[in-house]
Amino acid sequence: MRQRLESITVETRGPGLYPFTDAAQRFTHEMAIENGLLTCFIRHTSASLLVQENADSDVLADLEQFMCRLVSRDPGLYRHDAEGPDDMPSHIRSALTATSLSIPVDRGELALGIWQGLYVFEHRDASHSRKILMHLIGA
Amino acid sequence: MRQRLESITVETRGPGLYPFTDAAQRFTHEMAIENGLLTCFIRHTSASLLVQENADSDVLADLEQFMCRLVSRDPGLYRHDAEGPDDMPSHIRSALTATSLSIPVDRGELALGIWQGLYVFEHRDASHSRKILMHLIGA
Amino acid sequence: MRQRLESITVETRGPGLYPFTDAAQRFTHEMAIENGLLTCFIRHTSASLLVQENADSDVLADLEQFMCRLVSRDPGLYRHDAEGPDDMPSHIRSALTATSLSIPVDRGELALGIWQGLYVFEHRDASHSRKILMHLIGA
Repeated sequence: MRQRLESITVETRGPGLYPFTDAAQRFTHEMAIENGLLTCFIRHTSASLLVQENADSDVLADLEQFMCRLVSRDPGLYRHDAEGPDDMPSHIRSALTATSLSIPVDRGELALGIWQGLYVFEHRDASHSRKILMHLIGA
Repeated sequence: MRQRLESITVETRGPGLYPFTDAAQRFTHEMAIENGLLTCFIRHTSASLLVQENADSDVLADLEQFMCRLVSRDPGLYRHDAEGPDDMPSHIRSALTATSLSIPVDRGELALGIWQGLYVFEHRDASHSRKILMHLIGA
Repeated sequence: MRQRLESITVETRGPGLYPFTDAAQRFTHEMAIENGLLTCFIRHTSASLLVQENADSDVLADLEQFMCRLVSRDPGLYRHDAEGPDDMPSHIRSALTATSLSIPVDRGELALGIWQGLYVFEHRDASHSRKILMHLIGA
């Protein structure tokens, strides 16, 4: 059994979904294991991870709009507003989605379904460099 | 340290929760490890995974109804409607629940709490064959 | 490759977030691995796990209040009420957050971001002893 760790950075420019499937697949191929498990972890509390449909970008836009409706930016609702009206809603949106994701590796390939892609879900308005740590274990 | 991978299919008939605890326990017993970690991954973006109460089926019905109230099917809200009014709401419901779940194995048994069961959470109206990949590592 | 399992108990006194980052870090240090993966699993369906901001306690209070608004306690909405008006809302709040969380270990340290802490998210009104199982694998 072997393992490997790699940190990648995803640059974001405002709320929405940013793919990193290619980086995860490259990392998996480089280690050249037959079977195993890839775990992705995002080192932030105002952006999160998501497995979502990779075919129609309307899905990603609708998902972002749903989160806007679900988590109000009304500043009267929150005590924590140190970084502006998108600050606390970002923490809530992160809590409702994932901080870590694990995907099996099957015969050398990340076992994503045919319509599945890996995304960083950015919740803040400003541009950010989001750090994701990928851990791969297998043989 | 050893690992093993298995794919199972859960047949669904409309929105709601479908148990697969037995399949996960059988897979764990077959590998006959003392300690380890089971990871389940669903290969779809309109169905998800959930650990929930296994005793009272009212919990599962109430959870399904909550999701219906939370995620509207009003087609005016979404751009993505290629597969009907349950299409985009299914992606949203999946994003709000889990795509992967990890459960430790303790003295040969899946360490679920006494009230915990493993479920596929189906979000689409039509019948589907949902593929779950189980990865087990341990010794 | 080595692995280790430990069960900890977090005492809760009503809805809100209870930190257990210190216990997870101590467990990681004790095993003295260079790289690896820590997985935390909560053995309950009315409390959950969360990675959230560890600096401003207002974030935790705002998050709790958001969940109160999102998941109504109106008993007319639910069939399952065996344990009171906070019973079914607790199951729903758990379904919307995490039951398991995985965090990589990098050069002997839990690779949490600088603002990230690990929390039990209690959803019930009464005091509870919440059991979390921690699984660590690495070398």
